[in-house]
Amino acid sequence: MKAGGRHFETIWLKPGDPSVVQVIDQRFLPFDFVIEDLTNEEEVFTAIRDMHIRGAPLIGAAAAFGIYLAQLNSGKHTSPDAFLQQTARRLKSARPTAVNLSFCVDRMIMAIAEGSGRREKNERALETVLEIVDEERENSKKIGEQGVSLIEAASRRKTGEPVNILTHCNAGWLACIDYGTATAPIYKAHEMGIPVHVWVDETRPRNQGSRLTAWEMAENGVPYTLIADNTGGHLMQKGLVDMVLVGSDRTTIRGDVANKIGTYLKALAAHDNGVPFYAAMPSSSIDWSVEDGLSEIPIEERGGDELLYLETYTGGKWVRTPVARSDTPVYNAGFDITPARLVTALITERGICKAEKSAIFDLFHDKNTKLL
Amino acid sequence: MKAGGRHFETIWLKPGDPSVVQVIDQRFLPFDFVIEDLTNEEEVFTAIRDMHIRGAPLIGAAAAFGIYLAQLNSGKHTSPDAFLQQTARRLKSARPTAVNLSFCVDRMIMAIAEGSGRREKNERALETVLEIVDEERENSKKIGEQGVSLIEAASRRKTGEPVNILTHCNAGWLACIDYGTATAPIYKAHEMGIPVHVWVDETRPRNQGSRLTAWEMAENGVPYTLIADNTGGHLMQKGLVDMVLVGSDRTTIRGDVANKIGTYLKALAAHDNGVPFYAAMPSSSIDWSVEDGLSEIPIEERGGDELLYLETYTGGKWVRTPVARSDTPVYNAGFDITPARLVTALITERGICKAEKSAIFDLFHDKNTKLL
Repeated sequence: MKAGGRHFETIWLKPGDPSVVQVIDQRFLPFDFVIEDLTNEEEVFTAIRDMHIRGAPLIGAAAAFGIYLAQLNSGKHTSPDAFLQQTARRLKSARPTAVNLSFCVDRMIMAIAEGSGRREKNERALETVLEIVDEERENSKKIGEQGVSLIEAASRRKTGEPVNILTHCNAGWLACIDYGTATAPIYKAHEMGIPVHVWVDETRPRNQGSRLTAWEMAENGVPYTLIADNTGGHLMQKGLVDMVLVGSDRTTIRGDVANKIGTYLKALAAHDNGVPFYAAMPSSSIDWSVEDGLSEIPIEERGGDELLYLETYTGGKWVRTPVARSDTPVYNAGFDITPARLVTALITERGICKAEKSAIFDLFHDKNTKLL
Repeated sequence: MKAGGRHFETIWLKPGDPSVVQVIDQRFLPFDFVIEDLTNEEEVFTAIRDMHIRGAPLIGAAAAFGIYLAQLNSGKHTSPDAFLQQTARRLKSARPTAVNLSFCVDRMIMAIAEGSGRREKNERALETVLEIVDEERENSKKIGEQGVSLIEAASRRKTGEPVNILTHCNAGWLACIDYGTATAPIYKAHEMGIPVHVWVDETRPRNQGSRLTAWEMAENGVPYTLIADNTGGHLMQKGLVDMVLVGSDRTTIRGDVANKIGTYLKALAAHDNGVPFYAAMPSSSIDWSVEDGLSEIPIEERGGDELLYLETYTGGKWVRTPVARSDTPVYNAGFDITPARLVTALITERGICKAEKSAIFDLFHDKNTKLL
């Protein structure tokens, strides 16, 4: 999508130097647009853990690039295989909730294992990481094409008025390679001339809504309004939300959705007000090994400083502003689980389905037969 | 309650000079403890509108002090009566959602009207404002005594473990004269040695939770943990909340509760997880003229800057830190309505009752006969 009028994706090989991976360092947004060079697997680990980049599909792709760089560097180690395995474990530990990370790392390790000799292994690593990037780009594009039908249908009922879509966190192109997950149908609708308006949840404590989603909407000309996370229920009570559309960091086979903390509250409000609640995700975010999200998905706990300080980038430097007393005890969970019963439908690259085991299986049966 | 180890209330006449009203200027908390002198009705208006002081019972009392000061100053005006009426309208317009403000202003005007001559009117004004302060202090104290029974009952089921109470915004002593509304039963339980632990919602966009409630808890030794507004649902899903306890800016005769934006989302989560949801309020926050909160209670909209900037007081000066792009469109509603069906019970100075018209009437029948 566009940033400063130019097309960008979120991660790519440095032109002219395929031993360097480049990403948009999202910590600086919306205050500055900074591209970071990642030259080894440890820098990739840091970029994922410290959220220079985030979003389930993107951290999956980034971790794949981490394994790719580790493969390039593996010759320096006495046991390249052991080094790769160790890097795989380390990358998987960077963020616990999204399942893409684990999938992509395993896929890279398997692909590399199939090559014989360093050169072929390097080639395999490169091919596979580019395949992952291509697939995720394509997945997002297809999610947009699938999901736009729901916005079109809502638009027909609005007789020219914009379709009001509430989203939480950033499931935008910044969370993916391009297009986004939750935003893909929104961008597609906007491109098709369907009037849309997006309610952007601020998304405390890291403000991915006010910092990233609002920035994406502004840069791509989509009408939007920023709201506090507290506001969505009130808007739904007043009939000002036509649908809720969010991403998913991990979706279980029965349709429970792990997503940014606070998603569950919006799903409850949607349910209470008869507003459809959709979660959009590529199949790489579906965990075919998990049924019950609440008991089986690990929820990341992050440091309390995210609530005690606001970190912003102003005048070329980072500013850390205290929000509360520095001795305040904090609990900071990164995600929550929206049970399938509150999810109207899932939007995937394969199509739209009910948040039910049988419906999900029907959609993915051929592709994932080996996984089930 | 305590601040810096000393007992404070939120508003009082300046010792030695009853023509000056003093308040804790809450904008500076928790960074500094500043007492502001209010010397005329216009300064009271500003203090209410710009939230130097806030909380339904406190803005009611403050508005009464505003009329008191206006009465003292009314001799300077050609028509003292017209000046008082004009001041009454102006004070009522300072914040639209809480009903206490309107009640207290009307009560002052009526009391003053009953006096004959300036001196007697001045005396009536002073007597009545002090009566209001005494009543609100007493109301909070009684809310504590009534509500603690619910915490005691929960504690019996916890066999020594702390009772986990989630609260939203600040319905603490800083919102009242003393003790608070939602916090009154908590302080009472703590005083009685019942182990409690409070989950303090940050309460965006003005952060009354992280700034005020957390500060209150710390200053009074009550165990607490700060959380993002997004987190309460997740905690309830995990069984980590025994009750939700909030205040109310206006309660309708059928038990709908207008309270800080986001309260409704917590009520939904409580309902979904079988967690009791209590709202505590003095009878001065019950609007006997309103039945349906959603259609009849005006919801204050505040400026967008509250979401775009964080204002903090650091090193003796105000710092305004940008949170998002300054050109971001914002919608900032201050309150929402929790429908009575989600409210387990109301806690008032008269007792605890169901959020139902007949139960509320039974509790207040004698006192409010003339209002019904």
